[in-house]
Amino acid sequence: MSATTLEQIRKLDREDRLARFRDRFDIPKGLIYLDGNSLGCLPKAAKTRLADVVQREWGQDLIRSWNSNDWINAPRRIGGKIAALVGASEKELIVGDTTSINVFKCLSASLQLNEERSVLLSETGNFPTDAYMMEGLAAIAPDRVEARLVDPGDILSNLDASVAALLLTHTHYKTGRVQDMKGVTQAAHKKGIPVIWDLSHSCGAMPVDLNGCDADFAVGCGYKYLNGGPGAPAFTFAAERHQEKVFPALSGWLGHKAPFAFDDFYEPAPGIDRFQCGTPGILGCAALEVGVDLMLEADMADIRAKSSALGNLFLELVEEKCGAYGFQPACPVEADQRGSQVSFHHPEGYAIMQALIARNVIGDFRAPDILRFGFAPLYNSYENVWNAVSILADIMESRAWDDAQFKQKAAVT
Amino acid sequence: MSATTLEQIRKLDREDRLARFRDRFDIPKGLIYLDGNSLGCLPKAAKTRLADVVQREWGQDLIRSWNSNDWINAPRRIGGKIAALVGASEKELIVGDTTSINVFKCLSASLQLNEERSVLLSETGNFPTDAYMMEGLAAIAPDRVEARLVDPGDILSNLDASVAALLLTHTHYKTGRVQDMKGVTQAAHKKGIPVIWDLSHSCGAMPVDLNGCDADFAVGCGYKYLNGGPGAPAFTFAAERHQEKVFPALSGWLGHKAPFAFDDFYEPAPGIDRFQCGTPGILGCAALEVGVDLMLEADMADIRAKSSALGNLFLELVEEKCGAYGFQPACPVEADQRGSQVSFHHPEGYAIMQALIARNVIGDFRAPDILRFGFAPLYNSYENVWNAVSILADIMESRAWDDAQFKQKAAVT
Repeated sequence: MSATTLEQIRKLDREDRLARFRDRFDIPKGLIYLDGNSLGCLPKAAKTRLADVVQREWGQDLIRSWNSNDWINAPRRIGGKIAALVGASEKELIVGDTTSINVFKCLSASLQLNEERSVLLSETGNFPTDAYMMEGLAAIAPDRVEARLVDPGDILSNLDASVAALLLTHTHYKTGRVQDMKGVTQAAHKKGIPVIWDLSHSCGAMPVDLNGCDADFAVGCGYKYLNGGPGAPAFTFAAERHQEKVFPALSGWLGHKAPFAFDDFYEPAPGIDRFQCGTPGILGCAALEVGVDLMLEADMADIRAKSSALGNLFLELVEEKCGAYGFQPACPVEADQRGSQVSFHHPEGYAIMQALIARNVIGDFRAPDILRFGFAPLYNSYENVWNAVSILADIMESRAWDDAQFKQKAAVT
Repeated sequence: MSATTLEQIRKLDREDRLARFRDRFDIPKGLIYLDGNSLGCLPKAAKTRLADVVQREWGQDLIRSWNSNDWINAPRRIGGKIAALVGASEKELIVGDTTSINVFKCLSASLQLNEERSVLLSETGNFPTDAYMMEGLAAIAPDRVEARLVDPGDILSNLDASVAALLLTHTHYKTGRVQDMKGVTQAAHKKGIPVIWDLSHSCGAMPVDLNGCDADFAVGCGYKYLNGGPGAPAFTFAAERHQEKVFPALSGWLGHKAPFAFDDFYEPAPGIDRFQCGTPGILGCAALEVGVDLMLEADMADIRAKSSALGNLFLELVEEKCGAYGFQPACPVEADQRGSQVSFHHPEGYAIMQALIARNVIGDFRAPDILRFGFAPLYNSYENVWNAVSILADIMESRAWDDAQFKQKAAVT
């Protein structure tokens, strides 16, 4: 791509087949929001849907809504819709709890597939909640389970007969690097190791083909590219071939085969239902369903193509306009190896990001020195990218970032 | 109480100091809602609060809301408010996840206090998710941990040096029987056993004094008497004296001492914060906070007194008007041993409850034969009780329940 005039940029937006989706979201006026990989924007339909859930379903129908408004099937129903986005069957995916909790469910299930093996393997430098959940599980049974982190480059050489499960994130939260899901899964399977894929930064941003890759388990986040709202419920995938052999150690009543029999002893529900635990948060489910429904209207190939183009444009414009200011790409420059984000190292990354935010360009900072910009193809435009980099160049040229107000850390960075 | 005329009943309502709260809720016209122990009614303020969270905090402020709208502190802030309702300090209680998940956290923490002990002890016939979570934990470490259920009458005689933790529900979900929290906790402590109290059917319905009883851990539900909305976040209490000695095996990133350092290895946050796990559901938190704020305006002694009086009246009227129809109390008739509900055995309990619901009297059925009626003193009136029992008597006299439409089981009973 060699588009470097505003006219050319605007032409890309005019020709964009996804441009019609932008109006389906509430985008604050004047804001360039490149943080949909942290919290997706508000679908307009979520406002009316949530008002209806609150006023009619909760307020008027009350407890009857579990049947009359089908609350009881929300985790299954929304799970089935997300399944279509990630190459799973609707019997293999269920919504509920958080990504962290669902990682724990998949880890405990994986151990049941490999009762003579002890190691839960993952890589250093990943978004750490996944590794922390491995540690927590190992702490319950230190004689039985070992949590092991190795350098990303050493994963394949550590796939041996001691490994009970491999836990990897498909798209890296900082670098945006995308793993070879099919190749890694095959390599692990050759050693009898099931793989748990964390799709938090992939689902809704690119085609994912869990069954095409013969994946075993997966988890994913509802509040990033799925636009499910702050702290939206997460999801769990378990391949159909494993479901009857395992149960999550988080064996709550809604994962029981007969929850309303109130039996004293746990017997797992058939299929993916056993990955439910407690009562689902209905407000969170309702918002998530709106985001997922909206995404299902778009073509995932279009989303991926535009995502790649937005990222390429950002990298190209930073090189062109900010080449003198010391930004080093922290992401792959090849679009096919990159998720829907770009990132850069810069020693003053924190202050530069605060200066951008003050100018209404929202990305985020990830310690120690990374500026991260996410692209949500449903609502981000090429002109967003043009303007964001123009403002960045202005901040760098004027050294606007070099100001005490931008160096003070907030609670959430 | 000998009030058995409608005039006398109406006088009780006129003199009720809590009557003013009824108008703070959306109560469907013509509905007699005696199921607030399953899903509390909608506080009117929740409608405007949720619209604001959705439209302004999510839609306009987006990711900045973690700081600017203090989302990051919601679990601590709401936890501190609930603490005031259950005799805890604000440093001891945090909101998040479900009751089931929080039971697991407390069980895993208890095991760390008693590393040489193996038994997780609880009673049969309780709401079973608590026992299922014990089973799940034991399944991870079968050589280390045993889940043991005994008859309720055998708990005290099973408190021995093998028991790592005792898990009990304060108010029983079916019978409404209230445990002696102080006495049982003392008996357990004499044997070196920490106690985990499930407050799901107590918090918001009666005074609870966790610190006065020297309680160790507790969990509770947000969507019953706290009126936090369907599937509201639950809470976890850990006594300050234990906090630095334990961590929940569900060791997610928000329970880390420096979540935004993204360290590879888990180090628990100071104090109660370590009982956080993944990203909190902000919509659910927002609704819960409205319910809790409303409850904090009322006097808990008034709530308990009215709750007892409503239950006594219900029992008395059933005896007077339905004495011939075979209802056997399943709850204690002494108000001081009973939570904010009454329940009855009846062989046709399911059909009778469906017939009541068809007449706009909402209670619920619990297998195998229990009709359960909950009283939420903030919005239930004495006249609600009078009318409910009058309709019940009418259904029994006319045998209206004896109809095929009332015998067909719904997904959620």
